[in-house]
Amino acid sequence: MEFEKKLEEFKEYLRKIEYLGCATSVLYWDLRVYAPKKGVPYRSDVLGYLSGELYKLATSNEMKGFIDYFSKFDDLDIVTKAMVEEAKKEYDQTKKIPEDKYREFTVLASNAESAWQEAKEKNDFSIFQPYLEKIVEFKKEFIEYWGYKDNKYDTLLDFFEPGITVEKLDQVFKELRDAIIDLLNKINKSSVKVDKSILTKEIDIPRQDKFSKEVLEKLEYDFEAGRVDETEHPFTIEFGNKDVRITTHYFKDNFISGLLSNIHEGGHAIYEQDIPDSLRATGLASGASMGIHESQSRFYENILARGKEFWKYFYPILQERFPEYKEVPFAEFFKAINLVEPSLIRTEADELTYSLHIIIRYEIEKMLINGQIEVKDLPKIWNEKYKEYLGVEPSTDAEGVLQDVHWAGGDFGYFPSYALGNLYGAQFLNKMREDIKDLDEQIEKGNFGVIHNWLKENIHKHGSVYKPSELIKMVTGEELTAKYFIDYLNKKYAEVYDI
Amino acid sequence: MEFEKKLEEFKEYLRKIEYLGCATSVLYWDLRVYAPKKGVPYRSDVLGYLSGELYKLATSNEMKGFIDYFSKFDDLDIVTKAMVEEAKKEYDQTKKIPEDKYREFTVLASNAESAWQEAKEKNDFSIFQPYLEKIVEFKKEFIEYWGYKDNKYDTLLDFFEPGITVEKLDQVFKELRDAIIDLLNKINKSSVKVDKSILTKEIDIPRQDKFSKEVLEKLEYDFEAGRVDETEHPFTIEFGNKDVRITTHYFKDNFISGLLSNIHEGGHAIYEQDIPDSLRATGLASGASMGIHESQSRFYENILARGKEFWKYFYPILQERFPEYKEVPFAEFFKAINLVEPSLIRTEADELTYSLHIIIRYEIEKMLINGQIEVKDLPKIWNEKYKEYLGVEPSTDAEGVLQDVHWAGGDFGYFPSYALGNLYGAQFLNKMREDIKDLDEQIEKGNFGVIHNWLKENIHKHGSVYKPSELIKMVTGEELTAKYFIDYLNKKYAEVYDI
Repeated sequence: MEFEKKLEEFKEYLRKIEYLGCATSVLYWDLRVYAPKKGVPYRSDVLGYLSGELYKLATSNEMKGFIDYFSKFDDLDIVTKAMVEEAKKEYDQTKKIPEDKYREFTVLASNAESAWQEAKEKNDFSIFQPYLEKIVEFKKEFIEYWGYKDNKYDTLLDFFEPGITVEKLDQVFKELRDAIIDLLNKINKSSVKVDKSILTKEIDIPRQDKFSKEVLEKLEYDFEAGRVDETEHPFTIEFGNKDVRITTHYFKDNFISGLLSNIHEGGHAIYEQDIPDSLRATGLASGASMGIHESQSRFYENILARGKEFWKYFYPILQERFPEYKEVPFAEFFKAINLVEPSLIRTEADELTYSLHIIIRYEIEKMLINGQIEVKDLPKIWNEKYKEYLGVEPSTDAEGVLQDVHWAGGDFGYFPSYALGNLYGAQFLNKMREDIKDLDEQIEKGNFGVIHNWLKENIHKHGSVYKPSELIKMVTGEELTAKYFIDYLNKKYAEVYDI
Repeated sequence: MEFEKKLEEFKEYLRKIEYLGCATSVLYWDLRVYAPKKGVPYRSDVLGYLSGELYKLATSNEMKGFIDYFSKFDDLDIVTKAMVEEAKKEYDQTKKIPEDKYREFTVLASNAESAWQEAKEKNDFSIFQPYLEKIVEFKKEFIEYWGYKDNKYDTLLDFFEPGITVEKLDQVFKELRDAIIDLLNKINKSSVKVDKSILTKEIDIPRQDKFSKEVLEKLEYDFEAGRVDETEHPFTIEFGNKDVRITTHYFKDNFISGLLSNIHEGGHAIYEQDIPDSLRATGLASGASMGIHESQSRFYENILARGKEFWKYFYPILQERFPEYKEVPFAEFFKAINLVEPSLIRTEADELTYSLHIIIRYEIEKMLINGQIEVKDLPKIWNEKYKEYLGVEPSTDAEGVLQDVHWAGGDFGYFPSYALGNLYGAQFLNKMREDIKDLDEQIEKGNFGVIHNWLKENIHKHGSVYKPSELIKMVTGEELTAKYFIDYLNKKYAEVYDI
């Protein structure tokens, strides 16, 4: 009886956090999408206030009371158990750090971002270096407060990908790296020529937008529970499961970029739209982890929308909508969207080399956090690794070590999720093929509902009740492995590059 | 020393209210403008939560502490004094009502709105009647809690138009009513024919939108601190003085409706954009009252944008933008936008008869609250008054007593503000003419900055530091009077109808 009452109170408390989180997200979305220029500073103040309130709620004595009360029970149902763990994780993450340290770090991170911006613009790593050094010191100190077992970096990984360890990542990333480099060498020797210029035909943006939405609709993104707007950088954001919005950036002479970006964000958004109402006010009404989220967006963007079957269905429609492509043969188009071309910038990487960009960052972060390298050596190490893995070398730090904002905010441990998304996605694909024998035929016929349904039933409907490691085991029967993604890559590029 | 510290704390407290209010407004705007259909219920829950938090802050013991502390001083500077009064007013408005009564009323008002909707759709007053009876009873009971001096209705008026009384309104509204009816009779006898069909030329909406924005820009609405979007019903909303948004509704075959609506909302918005930063976190960073706000929107919409000088400047530009009007003579256009045609629906009324719609509502509300008539008699009284004042009679309650939503929410005392806006506006105009000798010439030349500047310096910059009665006295040297609006109407319609 007391338990039931306490649980109800706990949920009411979490509901407040959810509501404030929703308000924060709407204000953020509006700031990025529609707010007028002069309104930005005041809006930032309001957002700062709301974050502060959220922080207070997540770290209050009341919250501690709930956590302590429910932690006493060892027979909690799975959802309540996950609720408590999630709340405890967030509570510990901040409360274990002395308050003045935490505040100091917040100010530092904000200044570091400005310094990073300036350093990137001026192409001068030395502007960013002192800030990054402090950030790394803080993170190391924080890890001491948070505690760690085998590897300090594990503690950081755990925030983004609960349960993932350096030991595991070292193994799968090594396999993946070797396989990709091997494939890259074969592709370099291939005599197949890909004409990427066919993708630069000018298509006006209203037509791109219309076609993108047609595709999203067909993939079962629910437009009655979402919308698409344009921003400089695409993102997905949810205000509850009935209002999950996508933003996109169209380029007049590169429609495929906007389209695939929409499909990528669509993958994130369909995930959030599928999270059941029953998980509201539990703190679990979101994706299982960054990596699982990326597995969904990348599944839609790469496995599906760079796949042959997808275009067997959509290419004739595309040719209808964009008569500019009437004369472009299917095979040429398919090769062009699967072009492999090692490059310097992560966000512009092709499907094959993308993971190498991530592995480089992972290797560097791990060494940095464990004190094996120093911040001042980063540009050199960065460039060496790019040369070694990708065969390209940045001529400036702006297109090298300064390209991403993540480190300025202290987000070490975040990058691996992107590559994990690729691995999870291929593992899901393998299981999906077992469950849906005629998967390719269904895709060719445009029956994307079977895919959506499979993802919904196996992944989406669980929200973040399960840790990613639990989920992958539960769904596929196997632990995280690079095997299926490597198989997938080998098969795909054998076809594209005739190797 | 203690005073300074307390004041700082009070402002910090008011700042929280302001921030939460801003968040609420952004969520509301988004709900009305861009939210997808299925997202509405959850968003309403979040809005409900935020309103609850705002209510708690406005009625907390902490708030009472501030009010009590500062009320002890009789030498407060004008801003601090107004801050305390404003906070006290809101505190009293809810705290004087027993909490269960207040809750009961909130539920009733929500149900009453649904009943009103149904009644209007089915054109059946009896569906709404029992709800309205209860609403009126509650309001009468609340007035006992709030207290009153001469007339119970004064208490309600005071919420919307601090300082305004039945005694004053009876006098000015009688003068106004008689003058309008007199003018109407003369217009009816005029031989001048107005061709309103010239306003129904089809203009596609992007062109309307572009021209509207051109006009707003010229009137000095700051687009870097605002934006225009489309909604079913137009409104203005502010998220601080640097982000004041307008919404509008365009009709393909009635461009003047969308344009004047934009100018009306522009008047509200320019007011809010002009409120100085120094009034943030005082609770006074808004218009002085509903009536003063309407005086600004109506000044821009009617006095300015239905005036001859305005169109001397803009008509050639309009003819450029809308070549459809190349052949329409200026005089015909000017008459058409100033057509007088008594009608049943308030929101569609012309500039002359609009106030009569308001006066009818005022007379009815006053009698209802003072127990001189009963709810069941409303349809009959309504129709009689329309017949008597406007010469038209509703054939259904939907186009009669059921047309407005206000009473369903218990908003008695709100309607008079609309007509007060007309009176204040003409008083301001009179003073403006004294201060700017060549006002008409400036308008003809398109120098709308002189008007904006006058309004800003005399009205806008004060936010709600002064009560409307104080403000009008301070700006014009006179109390509220119907004289100048009546003069204005006589002069205008003498010109339009040659009377």
